[in-house]
Amino acid sequence: MDSLSIVAVASIVTAGLCISIGSIGPALGEGKALTQALSAIAQQPDETNTITRTLFVGMAMVESTAIYCFVVAMILIFANPFWNYFLSKAGG
Amino acid sequence: MDSLSIVAVASIVTAGLCISIGSIGPALGEGKALTQALSAIAQQPDETNTITRTLFVGMAMVESTAIYCFVVAMILIFANPFWNYFLSKAGG
Amino acid sequence: MDSLSIVAVASIVTAGLCISIGSIGPALGEGKALTQALSAIAQQPDETNTITRTLFVGMAMVESTAIYCFVVAMILIFANPFWNYFLSKAGG
Amino acid sequence: MDSLSIVAVASIVTAGLCISIGSIGPALGEGKALTQALSAIAQQPDETNTITRTLFVGMAMVESTAIYCFVVAMILIFANPFWNYFLSKAGG
Amino acid sequence: MDSLSIVAVASIVTAGLCISIGSIGPALGEGKALTQALSAIAQQPDETNTITRTLFVGMAMVESTAIYCFVVAMILIFANPFWNYFLSKAGG
Amino acid sequence: MDSLSIVAVASIVTAGLCISIGSIGPALGEGKALTQALSAIAQQPDETNTITRTLFVGMAMVESTAIYCFVVAMILIFANPFWNYFLSKAGG
Amino acid sequence: MDSLSIVAVASIVTAGLCISIGSIGPALGEGKALTQALSAIAQQPDETNTITRTLFVGMAMVESTAIYCFVVAMILIFANPFWNYFLSKAGG
Amino acid sequence: MDSLSIVAVASIVTAGLCISIGSIGPALGEGKALTQALSAIAQQPDETNTITRTLFVGMAMVESTAIYCFVVAMILIFANPFWNYFLSKAGG
Amino acid sequence: MDSLSIVAVASIVTAGLCISIGSIGPALGEGKALTQALSAIAQQPDETNTITRTLFVGMAMVESTAIYCFVVAMILIFANPFWNYFLSKAGG
Amino acid sequence: MDSLSIVAVASIVTAGLCISIGSIGPALGEGKALTQALSAIAQQPDETNTITRTLFVGMAMVESTAIYCFVVAMILIFANPFWNYFLSKAGG
Amino acid sequence: MDSLSIVAVASIVTAGLCISIGSIGPALGEGKALTQALSAIAQQPDETNTITRTLFVGMAMVESTAIYCFVVAMILIFANPFWNYFLSKAGG
Amino acid sequence: MDSLSIVAVASIVTAGLCISIGSIGPALGEGKALTQALSAIAQQPDETNTITRTLFVGMAMVESTAIYCFVVAMILIFANPFWNYFLSKAGG
Amino acid sequence: MDSLSIVAVASIVTAGLCISIGSIGPALGEGKALTQALSAIAQQPDETNTITRTLFVGMAMVESTAIYCFVVAMILIFANPFWNYFLSKAGG
Amino acid sequence: MDSLSIVAVASIVTAGLCISIGSIGPALGEGKALTQALSAIAQQPDETNTITRTLFVGMAMVESTAIYCFVVAMILIFANPFWNYFLSKAGG
Repeated sequence: MDSLSIVAVASIVTAGLCISIGSIGPALGEGKALTQALSAIAQQPDETNTITRTLFVGMAMVESTAIYCFVVAMILIFANPFWNYFLSKAGG
Repeated sequence: MDSLSIVAVASIVTAGLCISIGSIGPALGEGKALTQALSAIAQQPDETNTITRTLFVGMAMVESTAIYCFVVAMILIFANPFWNYFLSKAGG
Repeated sequence: MDSLSIVAVASIVTAGLCISIGSIGPALGEGKALTQALSAIAQQPDETNTITRTLFVGMAMVESTAIYCFVVAMILIFANPFWNYFLSKAGG
Repeated sequence: MDSLSIVAVASIVTAGLCISIGSIGPALGEGKALTQALSAIAQQPDETNTITRTLFVGMAMVESTAIYCFVVAMILIFANPFWNYFLSKAGG
Repeated sequence: MDSLSIVAVASIVTAGLCISIGSIGPALGEGKALTQALSAIAQQPDETNTITRTLFVGMAMVESTAIYCFVVAMILIFANPFWNYFLSKAGG
Repeated sequence: MDSLSIVAVASIVTAGLCISIGSIGPALGEGKALTQALSAIAQQPDETNTITRTLFVGMAMVESTAIYCFVVAMILIFANPFWNYFLSKAGG
Repeated sequence: MDSLSIVAVASIVTAGLCISIGSIGPALGEGKALTQALSAIAQQPDETNTITRTLFVGMAMVESTAIYCFVVAMILIFANPFWNYFLSKAGG
Repeated sequence: MDSLSIVAVASIVTAGLCISIGSIGPALGEGKALTQALSAIAQQPDETNTITRTLFVGMAMVESTAIYCFVVAMILIFANPFWNYFLSKAGG
Repeated sequence: MDSLSIVAVASIVTAGLCISIGSIGPALGEGKALTQALSAIAQQPDETNTITRTLFVGMAMVESTAIYCFVVAMILIFANPFWNYFLSKAGG
Repeated sequence: MDSLSIVAVASIVTAGLCISIGSIGPALGEGKALTQALSAIAQQPDETNTITRTLFVGMAMVESTAIYCFVVAMILIFANPFWNYFLSKAGG
Repeated sequence: MDSLSIVAVASIVTAGLCISIGSIGPALGEGKALTQALSAIAQQPDETNTITRTLFVGMAMVESTAIYCFVVAMILIFANPFWNYFLSKAGG
Repeated sequence: MDSLSIVAVASIVTAGLCISIGSIGPALGEGKALTQALSAIAQQPDETNTITRTLFVGMAMVESTAIYCFVVAMILIFANPFWNYFLSKAGG
Repeated sequence: MDSLSIVAVASIVTAGLCISIGSIGPALGEGKALTQALSAIAQQPDETNTITRTLFVGMAMVESTAIYCFVVAMILIFANPFWNYFLSKAGG
Repeated sequence: MDSLSIVAVASIVTAGLCISIGSIGPALGEGKALTQALSAIAQQPDETNTITRTLFVGMAMVESTAIYCFVVAMILIFANPFWNYFLSKAGG
């Protein structure tokens, strides 16, 4: 197995695992926050605006960890410096 | 095993695992939020509209992490840059 | 083991694992939501319609992650681009 | 080990694991929903009809994820396109 | 190891694991439902008939996922198409 | 290692694992149901007969999944079609 | 490693694992039922007889799954048909 | 590695694992029952005799699963039929 | 690696794992019982004697499963029949 | 496999695992904090400002552990001293 | 690898794992008991002496399982009969 | 694979795992503390200053364990004495 | 790999795992006890002295299991009898 | 792979795992204690000084187990007696 193949395989497998494992935490965390938001709205309908605003700002912050994973996965697929190096060496 | 085969195998396995592992978190998170929404509606029937709206906007946000995984799986199957490279090399 | 065999094996195993792992989350999430719906109906029989409607729309959304997995499994078995490529090469 | 054997082994193992892993989630989810239904009936005997109807429609939806797995297992055993291909090649 | 042996081994191991793993979920789910049924009877002795009927219909539905596994295990042991193929080839 | 040995080993190991893994779920489920039955009797001594009858019918149903496993284990040890085939071939 | 040795090793290891894994579920289930029985006696001393009788009949039923495992372990050690076959072949 | 060694190693390892894994369930189950017994005595000091008697009879029943494991471990170390066979063959 | 070495290694590793795994269950079970005993004393100081006596008799019973493991570990280290056999053979 | 390839593969795999595993804890922790913040706002609407400020300062502190992981992943992909060394050696 | 080395390695690894795994259970059990003791003292300051005495006698009993592990680890490092045998053989 | 490569690979993999595993505990612990702080502020708005001060001093202490991991990861990447040794030997 | 190297590697790995695994239980147990102590002080400020004294004596007892692990790790690194033996043999 | 390399690799990997695994317990334990401290301050603002003092003394004690791990990791990286031995032998 030459270098290009093994780097390609590693990038494919890592990108897939990275985003799938990385989506477990944020999805559970956001689901729990959303759960409480609905309960809070039912309890204090007058505060719906404050609650919704805090919810979405907070969820964006939780989502950021999923986005880190997505960014790394995209870098590994489309802007992988290791792949580029071996590609240029193979093409040279 | 030549490069094309191994990249194909890695892409197939990763795509399947990516979407299946990545669907656990969102499914549980959305299920929990939906659970609370039903409880909130039973508790405050007058707020059904607000609750339902917040629920679906929030679930869309949770769903986004599943969609990241689906996007990566689809890229790996239908728009895989590594596969395309080896394909063009094999065909050249 | 030639390329066709290994791609076939990888597709079979991945399709099976993909749908079986991917069905755990949605089944648990939907079961929990259904559980709460029954409790809510017992608590507020007058809101049965609203609760049932929200329940089925929400379950369809949770089900969507299982459907992503089913779609990927079906693609891997019946419309696998990698298998098609090796098949055309073997048949050519 | 020739191609036919390995595809047969992979199909057998995957079919068995697919349906057994895939039955954990739905069985637990349906059991939990059934649990609550019995509690709801004890609490609101007058709503037995509504509760039972919602229960069975909802359980059918949860069951659907188990059925996806059963369908994939049956396809792998009785209508496996990969096995058919290698069979026709071996018989040709 | 010839093809017949390996298919036999795979069928034996898969059949055993399939039914044993597949019985965990239904057993727990049915046990939980039965638990609640007893509690409901103690709470509402007058509804014993309704509760018992719902319990057994529901348990049959949960049992169905165990039966899928049992069916697959029996097919693998007594009506295995892959084994039949290799048997006919070996006997031919 | 000849075919007879490997089929024997696979049957032994699978039979043991099948019944041991398969007994975890039913034992826990039945224990939980029994637990609740004792609590229900303490709460409603007058309903002892109904509770006990429902308990034992329900436990028989839960036990059925353990019995599926026991049946498969016994088939693998005493009526194993794969073993019989290789035995007849070896004896022929 | 000849056939006799490997069948002996498989029988030893399987017998030990079978009874040890198979004793986890029943022990926990019986412990939980016993726990509740003590609580029920403290709550309803007058029903001690009914509770104790139901407890021991129920525990015998839970114990049955441990006994299945013990039976299989004893069969594998003292009445193993596979071992007997190889023994008779080696002695013949 | 000759047959005697491998049977000895398998017996040693299995005996140790059998009793150690097999002691987890009974220890936890008995601990839980003992916990409740102490609570019941504090709640109903007048029933100390009934509670203590039920406790020790029940714990003996739970202990039985640990004793099955201990019996199997002792058989494997001191009365192992497989070891005896190979020993007699080696000594013959 | 000769027979003596491998039996020694297996005995060492098994003895260590046996007592360490086997101490988890009893330690947790006894800790839980002790926890409840302290709570019961605080609740019923007049019953301190009964509670303490039941506690220590019960803990001795739970401890028995740890002692089974300790006995097996000591047998494996200091009175191992398999080691003695190979030792006598090596020394003969 | 030469040194450059293996360092590339290790960097790719580690970067992906590092950020995906490292995002589980912060996402769950932040989700839990956000959950409580929404509950606190519903309970004390007048303290919304204090609560929101404490929430975001605290979440930034929790986020810091995710950022450590992101930093390490970025260093491994874009500023990896080991890769640079082998690159300069290969290029020299 | 000669016998002395492998026995040394096995002893080192087993001693370390034995005490580290064996300390989990007692530490958690003692921590839980200590937790309850503090709660009981806060609730019944007059019973501090009885509670403290029961606590320390009980903790010593729980500690005993950790001490079994420590004893086995020390035997394996400083009084290992298998090591002594091979040492005397190597030195003889 | 020469020494330099293997030390580089080990350093890369360990640094990534070290910080990612090491961030799980602190993130969860800090998240839980932050959760309680928000609840405490809602309960006692007048003590906001004391609560916030204790929170941040405490979180810094919890954070310290994450920082230990970060320090070790940085040492392994940028100030690794083993790498430096092999580098100087390779360069000498 | 000669004996000295393998003993060194085993000692290093075991020492690290021993103290790290062994610190999980005590840290959690002490944290839980400390948690309750703070709650008890808030509840009974007058008993602060008794509570604090019991806390620290108890924590020292829980800490003892961590210290066993630390002692074993230090023995393995600085006073390892197996290492000393091989060292003296290598140096002789 | 020579001795120096393998000792270096073992030291690197062990140091990283040691501190990362070892930080999970203390971080969770300290987080839980801190959580309760904040709750206690909100409940008894007048006891803030006592609570804070007990908290930090206790956290230092919990932290001690993390410090044991940090010490071992630092010893393995900077004062490793095994590494020093092989270094002096290689340099001699």
